[in-house]
Amino acid sequence: MKLSAYTDVCLRVLMTLAAAEGERVTSQQIADRIQVPYNHVIKAVAELRRRGTIEVLRGRNGGATIAEAGLDQRVGELVRALSSRDEVIDCAGHETGVPCPFAADCRLREALARAREAFMAELDLLTVRDLVRPGRAGATGPVSLGLPAMGSHAATV
Amino acid sequence: MKLSAYTDVCLRVLMTLAAAEGERVTSQQIADRIQVPYNHVIKAVAELRRRGTIEVLRGRNGGATIAEAGLDQRVGELVRALSSRDEVIDCAGHETGVPCPFAADCRLREALARAREAFMAELDLLTVRDLVRPGRAGATGPVSLGLPAMGSHAATV
Repeated sequence: MKLSAYTDVCLRVLMTLAAAEGERVTSQQIADRIQVPYNHVIKAVAELRRRGTIEVLRGRNGGATIAEAGLDQRVGELVRALSSRDEVIDCAGHETGVPCPFAADCRLREALARAREAFMAELDLLTVRDLVRPGRAGATGPVSLGLPAMGSHAATV
Repeated sequence: MKLSAYTDVCLRVLMTLAAAEGERVTSQQIADRIQVPYNHVIKAVAELRRRGTIEVLRGRNGGATIAEAGLDQRVGELVRALSSRDEVIDCAGHETGVPCPFAADCRLREALARAREAFMAELDLLTVRDLVRPGRAGATGPVSLGLPAMGSHAATV
């Protein structure tokens, strides 16, 4: 079971900015920190800005910062919005061009829709702020932005 | 949010055999009924047989039938087993070769694991038998195996 690579990148961008609250971070800096190609970060930044979860200032001292609304955003709500077009399985044949013959009246399809909602409801228990909050006693927090770059930037997402 | 195409095919094969309980169905017949390439069906049939959910008889009058254990199989349990290697997002960088720098101690990763389990738990409320049971008053059941073939067989799954 997978979320789309696009949803993944959006979440990583938002967590990066949440962890760097107050700091202005350029798209190139985000790309370096999360090890994702620059052009994917650009798209995610544009979408998150459109949703009001981040603010972007242009120019020499520009960069993105997380908005208050972004910190308060329920994770399930965000994932639901970013993957609104996905079906859990491709009943309608969007990818194959061939709809499943069972699609019209299928118990599995209904069950998968309920399961998807249970998945999102679980994520709704957390806000973006919760994701970057240090969780365990003595832990320094989840986001170690100072980590050295691992591997190349040629990740396909 | 998607299940893998492989899990999808396995579910369709199992539903086809559940709907045709008592009948022996060849892999080619299954492929025709669910509109999925023959070689994908072959793989799914082998796996489902290995798991004891279907029985396969070779030879002229051969074919697959669903086992009692297959009818009683919890859907979540099956999906969990078929997608055991999947992470909800590619934290470890299996696809990109670049692990996420947050991966080691990430609140999101933990939340996604809980959400995945909520998804499976919802599917565990049903058995395979439930999936092919007529649901609504007056409905003839979910699986209309007599449907004419739609589109080509060139589906990529």
